[in-house]
Amino acid sequence: MVKYETQLDAIFTALAHPARRAMLARLGKGEATVGELAEPLGVSLPAVTKHLNMLERANLITRGKNAQWRPCRLEEAPFNAASDWIDAQRRIWESRLDRLENYLHTIEQRDRRKR
Amino acid sequence: MVKYETQLDAIFTALAHPARRAMLARLGKGEATVGELAEPLGVSLPAVTKHLNMLERANLITRGKNAQWRPCRLEEAPFNAASDWIDAQRRIWESRLDRLENYLHTIEQRDRRKR
Repeated sequence: MVKYETQLDAIFTALAHPARRAMLARLGKGEATVGELAEPLGVSLPAVTKHLNMLERANLITRGKNAQWRPCRLEEAPFNAASDWIDAQRRIWESRLDRLENYLHTIEQRDRRKR
Repeated sequence: MVKYETQLDAIFTALAHPARRAMLARLGKGEATVGELAEPLGVSLPAVTKHLNMLERANLITRGKNAQWRPCRLEEAPFNAASDWIDAQRRIWESRLDRLENYLHTIEQRDRRKR
C-alpha cells in the first residue's frame, strides 16, 4: 500500500510540470533522444536530463542501454495507475450520488402516499 | 493554453501527496470540516490547512463561507481535466500502434505477392 502511494506520488509529481508533460506527449509518438526532446522545448540538455530523471523515477519512461544514443521510451503502466486512482474516486462520488438519488426517490414516494 | 497548463500543474501537484489524496477520497463521500479531515490522518490542523490550501489552489475543493464551520467540498471538474490529459496521451499511443499495425500489414501483403 505504501509502495503504491509512493508510486502515485512520483507519477503525479512527474506530471506536474509542462515541460515533462510535453516530453511525454512527444514520446507518445515514438522513441526520442535527449537532444530531440530538448529542441522543441528550447531548454538546455542538463534541464531536460533533470526532467528525464524525474520521469524515470516515476517509471513513466525507460532509457536504452546504448551509452551513445540512449533513446527514451514511454512506459504506459504508470499512466494507468494514475487514471485508475482518478476513476476510483469518480466511482465513489457516483455511488454517493446514486444513494442520494435513491433517498430522494424514497422521500418523494412517501410524501405521495401521505397526500 | 498557458492557463490550462498552469491548472494542470496545480492539479497534478495537489494529487502528488498521500495525505491530500486521502483527503480527496474522504471528501468524495461528502462534505467535511478541517477537524474531520485531520482526525483519520493523525496530522495537526495547521498541516491539514496547508494541504487544503493546495487543494483549493487547484480548485479541487471549495470551502463554505460560514467562518465557524467552513465545510470542505469536492469539485469534480479538475479531476476531469487531469484524466482528459491522460486520455489524450493514450489516444496518441493508440493511433501510433494502429499506424504501426497497418504498416506491418502492408509489408506482409507485399511480401506475400512477391512469393
